[in-house]
Amino acid sequence: MFETADLGRKISKEEYEPQVEALRTELLKAQFAIQKTNSPVLILIGGVEGAGKGELINELTQWLDVRGVEVQHFQRPSDEAQERPEYWRYWMSLPARGRIAIYYGSWYTPAIIQRVEREKKHAQFELALQRISELERMLAEDHALVLKFWLHIPKEEQRQRFKALDGKKTTRWRVTHKDWEYHELYDRFAEVSETAIRETDTAQAPWHLIEATDARYRNLTVGQTILDAFQRRLSELAAPAQPAATRPTLSGPSAPAIGAILDKVDVDQTATDAHPIRLERAQERLARLTWKAERERRSTVIVFEGWDAAGKGGAIRRISQVIDARLRRVISVAAPTDEERAHHYLWRFWRHLPRGGNVTIYDRSWYGRVLVERVEGFAREEEWKRAYLEINEFEEQLVESGILVVKFFLHISKDEQARRFKEREQITYKQHKITEEDWRNRSKWDEYAAAINEMVARTSTSHAPWTLVPGNDKRVARVEVVETLVQRLEKAL
Amino acid sequence: MFETADLGRKISKEEYEPQVEALRTELLKAQFAIQKTNSPVLILIGGVEGAGKGELINELTQWLDVRGVEVQHFQRPSDEAQERPEYWRYWMSLPARGRIAIYYGSWYTPAIIQRVEREKKHAQFELALQRISELERMLAEDHALVLKFWLHIPKEEQRQRFKALDGKKTTRWRVTHKDWEYHELYDRFAEVSETAIRETDTAQAPWHLIEATDARYRNLTVGQTILDAFQRRLSELAAPAQPAATRPTLSGPSAPAIGAILDKVDVDQTATDAHPIRLERAQERLARLTWKAERERRSTVIVFEGWDAAGKGGAIRRISQVIDARLRRVISVAAPTDEERAHHYLWRFWRHLPRGGNVTIYDRSWYGRVLVERVEGFAREEEWKRAYLEINEFEEQLVESGILVVKFFLHISKDEQARRFKEREQITYKQHKITEEDWRNRSKWDEYAAAINEMVARTSTSHAPWTLVPGNDKRVARVEVVETLVQRLEKAL
Repeated sequence: MFETADLGRKISKEEYEPQVEALRTELLKAQFAIQKTNSPVLILIGGVEGAGKGELINELTQWLDVRGVEVQHFQRPSDEAQERPEYWRYWMSLPARGRIAIYYGSWYTPAIIQRVEREKKHAQFELALQRISELERMLAEDHALVLKFWLHIPKEEQRQRFKALDGKKTTRWRVTHKDWEYHELYDRFAEVSETAIRETDTAQAPWHLIEATDARYRNLTVGQTILDAFQRRLSELAAPAQPAATRPTLSGPSAPAIGAILDKVDVDQTATDAHPIRLERAQERLARLTWKAERERRSTVIVFEGWDAAGKGGAIRRISQVIDARLRRVISVAAPTDEERAHHYLWRFWRHLPRGGNVTIYDRSWYGRVLVERVEGFAREEEWKRAYLEINEFEEQLVESGILVVKFFLHISKDEQARRFKEREQITYKQHKITEEDWRNRSKWDEYAAAINEMVARTSTSHAPWTLVPGNDKRVARVEVVETLVQRLEKAL
Repeated sequence: MFETADLGRKISKEEYEPQVEALRTELLKAQFAIQKTNSPVLILIGGVEGAGKGELINELTQWLDVRGVEVQHFQRPSDEAQERPEYWRYWMSLPARGRIAIYYGSWYTPAIIQRVEREKKHAQFELALQRISELERMLAEDHALVLKFWLHIPKEEQRQRFKALDGKKTTRWRVTHKDWEYHELYDRFAEVSETAIRETDTAQAPWHLIEATDARYRNLTVGQTILDAFQRRLSELAAPAQPAATRPTLSGPSAPAIGAILDKVDVDQTATDAHPIRLERAQERLARLTWKAERERRSTVIVFEGWDAAGKGGAIRRISQVIDARLRRVISVAAPTDEERAHHYLWRFWRHLPRGGNVTIYDRSWYGRVLVERVEGFAREEEWKRAYLEINEFEEQLVESGILVVKFFLHISKDEQARRFKEREQITYKQHKITEEDWRNRSKWDEYAAAINEMVARTSTSHAPWTLVPGNDKRVARVEVVETLVQRLEKAL
């Protein structure tokens, strides 16, 4: 693969300067136009050591308006990052819409290095590449422009560059023992990188292999490629929207008939005398288990979804009242802030993931995408349809990193909901809990039921199953919730 | 002082329950009303070990609507925090307007513990208390409701509680060696805490000493105090705004006559043949120095202010082009996001402080408060007047933590500005840089000059001096900026 970047292409100083001048003007114009779009831009600069990644990035930040550009650079993960899923720090680094992030190294770096150093087996490496593809696909579908560059220099060139740096007192510190070690591993690096590039070279996030021996050729080629991509994106956006040629294909089972899953829940179960005692016992165990989880640094993510007035608040309180306040956080999902809106919709959930040993309770969650946003038309069809896959991949990453994911859907009958709405309207301190909107949502009961049904069918996985909670009797619901949580924790710890 | 919390007050279970019931209803109502105001609420829970801080916080989070409440708890600082000024993590923990943060321990904890353990001398302890007062004053002036509780139990009670926990298998792990050690130091703790409480007990952020031997008395008293504070705040807000009885007193020198400082700058200096060489040499030194700073983990904050079209962008580019892209970040200060607006105006600058060894360049800065916000009336008079002090305290904290603070004001003449505006209007790729607003701002030249003048007079301190840069000739300005930065870095490293 790298032969194509070994052709000895060069640009003379005389040719370079006027070309750069022209490129900069166009690039700046395109950047200002991109700033007004909903596209975040990710420019990944990878390649062998000594190929001039840093130099190139310095040049690019000069060419662009620095105020719209961030440079991202990942060193050893901070302890904040270490206690969260591997991709947390990448998510936190993502640029907002209209902004440009230039990545000096990226999610590819650890995957490649660990494979070269044989810390990871082939299967793990393949899984890492799959995760990368998932992330890039998700970003591209959310309108991100993802540009990936691989800077290539031959082995002999690398050796000479290291030697030159090593020979000068002022630059000696820049060549480390590690660099020479990697130089010895040049061929293995080439092999592993080639696999990574080949398997992640997609139409949405293509790789550009850049011959980097001549710095001027390297800079100009990268700059020109970025400009082309900007201009293509701008002309696509200027063109009238085209209807999608094919409907997005859905992975997973086809949606079962409306209500098929929800109907199986026996909402009318009523509490017995044993319920108060069961609740208390389960709560005691929960208190102990969450301390144990804290000592073992195991985090838990609990998701609550349910009909309006299904009793989410009460159920959450039964859990949170026995977990020490230092260990738990309740995230109430309301309208996103403007910073949140400027990112992929999952960004604001990544943001709140717990540190090691803590519990985060989401009062409504990322499932809003396939529930309220679907039914109310806030998300377009292709958006909520692809969300099932995005959500499954997200939860898979949580589970892989050791987080326990517990999901509850609180189900009540339509009659019971009406009864509770009316009750709320009559009790002073509950009036804030009932609005016009609740009644409006209720009129779409069947559409919501279909959405819930499909959600459960598509996102109840073995690692993150849904628990459907019968909710007409609150005492039954609360026991079910706390006991399920206890069982899941006991199994996990 | 603690005698007043040693009176043996108790509440029976029979009295407690109806009182809690009534309190909760009122508290919830008040919380919903507070949510609609611009007041963030900080509830600090301090006190001796074993006094039941955790228990109390669990109770409070049950009484309040958990969706508007965060619990903050500080353990050992993460490495992200360690590489920034001490208060960075406290700033990042501050609640947004309308939200409640309950602090389990707080900025008081390290100050008191380090003094008890004699890691800090008396003078350092006093400085720590002063920093605390500054923070709380600043928050209170920004409408925060700051409530501080100190839970007190006698030494003998503490001993018995530790023994009881120690005696049970399930709770033994909760009493650490450190707890017993601190028990031995009970009297010293009392003495140091008393000093801390006494010196930080202000009208804006008062301390409430709570007798905590009886849990019911403790919970109810704290809850009632919070309710009273909420209600008082709400009735203050409902009352028609009263004119401030006295004008805020300004610290620092009285403002000199308009233009006195700016007029001293010889804006008309023109470049000589030596300037290009000086620029290049200074840039080379800058490149080396920033790598050196990185190795020594010394961070730099550079502030750029100046008239519209004074050449900030060009000057910033001369700096950023020679600093490795991994080491520097340019923060362009535009309109705040809604998350930023929901916090103190300094919050968004704290947010972007560099990690150890890096350089953050602020293209416009916190000085907007006393420049554009003052002149355009976006900040009220008492707001921008108190900002001088707030800014000086902020920069002092940066410098204390080892950050080098370098501030440039780029000055040009009014005629030169007109020339540049017209030029910009004629060059295609510069047209985006000139708007109606620029001409509008220009019409207020004298008011801006007065504001700049006062800003320099009040905030040019020995640890963070202003450099006024003569800007009519851009080549002169750029040399001045880069050379000044080099000198400051050389002196600091």
